Amino acid sequence: MTIGELGEFALIGRITAGLSASGPVVLGVGDDCAVLRLAGDLAASTDTMVENVHFRTDWSAASDVGRKAVATCVADAEAMGAVPIGLVVSLAAPASTPTEWVDGFAAGVREECELAGVQLVGGDTTSAAQIVITSTVLADLGGLPPVRRSGARPGQVLAMVGRLGWAAAGVAVLGRGFRSPRAVVLAHRVPEVPYGQGRVAAEAGATALIDVSDGLLADLGHIARASGVLLDVDTTTFEIAEPQKAVAAAIGGGDPLVFQLTGGDDHALVGSFEKGAVPAGWRVIGRVLPGEPDVLVDGAAWAGSSAGWQHFA
Amino acid sequence: MTIGELGEFALIGRITAGLSASGPVVLGVGDDCAVLRLAGDLAASTDTMVENVHFRTDWSAASDVGRKAVATCVADAEAMGAVPIGLVVSLAAPASTPTEWVDGFAAGVREECELAGVQLVGGDTTSAAQIVITSTVLADLGGLPPVRRSGARPGQVLAMVGRLGWAAAGVAVLGRGFRSPRAVVLAHRVPEVPYGQGRVAAEAGATALIDVSDGLLADLGHIARASGVLLDVDTTTFEIAEPQKAVAAAIGGGDPLVFQLTGGDDHALVGSFEKGAVPAGWRVIGRVLPGEPDVLVDGAAWAGSSAGWQHFA
Repeated sequence: MTIGELGEFALIGRITAGLSASGPVVLGVGDDCAVLRLAGDLAASTDTMVENVHFRTDWSAASDVGRKAVATCVADAEAMGAVPIGLVVSLAAPASTPTEWVDGFAAGVREECELAGVQLVGGDTTSAAQIVITSTVLADLGGLPPVRRSGARPGQVLAMVGRLGWAAAGVAVLGRGFRSPRAVVLAHRVPEVPYGQGRVAAEAGATALIDVSDGLLADLGHIARASGVLLDVDTTTFEIAEPQKAVAAAIGGGDPLVFQLTGGDDHALVGSFEKGAVPAGWRVIGRVLPGEPDVLVDGAAWAGSSAGWQHFA
Repeated sequence: MTIGELGEFALIGRITAGLSASGPVVLGVGDDCAVLRLAGDLAASTDTMVENVHFRTDWSAASDVGRKAVATCVADAEAMGAVPIGLVVSLAAPASTPTEWVDGFAAGVREECELAGVQLVGGDTTSAAQIVITSTVLADLGGLPPVRRSGARPGQVLAMVGRLGWAAAGVAVLGRGFRSPRAVVLAHRVPEVPYGQGRVAAEAGATALIDVSDGLLADLGHIARASGVLLDVDTTTFEIAEPQKAVAAAIGGGDPLVFQLTGGDDHALVGSFEKGAVPAGWRVIGRVLPGEPDVLVDGAAWAGSSAGWQHFA
């Protein structure tokens, strides 16, 4: 059966069956709006994923797409130091889409919501020529100010938590028709966002914070420009995992650093801290220097491209 | 020039140029999240519009599409009795889209945001095969409980504010290749949402509230089922405007009531009130009765279809 045969209201019923509201969610799906009770200011961000741009249905299972739609969006709330509470998800899809695909997508959304600690509180469904998913995260700053990109100061250190360059290695092998190493392929399908660590960073006094979606150098560039500082990344601190070495050796020109420095979509969190304030589990990867806003690699300009991923480019 | 030639970051810069944050918006566009300070609970809702499903670029100017993307979404916050504060808007569009279209779209978004009293606080842009726009409204309940669909009680009256059946009459003429009456064509392009009246209704003690997006009978059906009541609409209270009569005479089978009872997308607000509590400017159009949940027209079942608009149908 297709979702066209099922109809809009039955489809919504299928996606939202059994959802309940609890804790800060006063009212979940089913009325004109969801209602959430926050302890502090609201942090909100929206993210869109398009079939054949951000994912391919032959590379990713429906549940992977659902999980990724949650993960990429919630990562933005983590990057403000907020506690993600609720999520609204819009699904536009062709009427010919099998209902099983939507069931898998919805199951993935719920699975990742549980991991992320958020509740699915609303959404929209409509027909379209290709699958387009837009998620909006609603998060609670709970008495703390947002951790912006603009607070990095000379003398502080750069630290990160999460993974770098795994999803990019996955896209590299998938794009060449391979399905392994499996670890990097899975990383492309569903990012491993370090849930909860954004709040940990905020409570530790992080002075700037961002999630790595375009690539480490590109996203540190945002911090450098917003803060008016020079950043220097020390690659001797990097952990190059075996699967990345394998992919780099086979197809990445031999240098796995390229994936780590320019690969996006793993949604690691990276930020600046006073030297003694780096939280447990975070790894120091560089330092904040005075100077024209820029990002250096081991004290020098990076020779390769650091533009990161741009749509329409 | 196309948005593909312009590139993503330049496109975002163009859309957000000159935007500033004020009042309850602590932080607008430019960081990982927007930050809003609310006085009460948060009401949030999301709405998606797809090219050739909800609008056609040969029927609507780019600015009309931008205005409609704001209006349809904010109407959901009005329908909870909340005060709309902020909006995030995602735009997926083909790389071949002219930059002038996006400029017009952005101008329309800003114009309608101003009318609605909301601030554009964030968004996303990406490439896609067709234009898909998703808006999410962030609204403040400011100490009042949300006005749900479930509170209508026998003995109360139904009252509405705004217009019925104008947009549907517009679609009817456009679909037949006509461009007039101009008033109904304009109503399809940009709904006239009665901004601020949702809050007026909440303060007057509305017991149920909804915005008419699928059609009056369909949307009253939501209230009837959620509240467990029978609703009776009195069509002698309807104001049938001249352009609707003209369209009905020409192509609607002669009965303009069809547009008023089943036409969606004008986003009138309709709700239930105690008899003495109907706010100024609202028109009583019916009453709430005990009985099996259903919607009657002048005391009888409506002979025509009242299904309203369903996607995928």
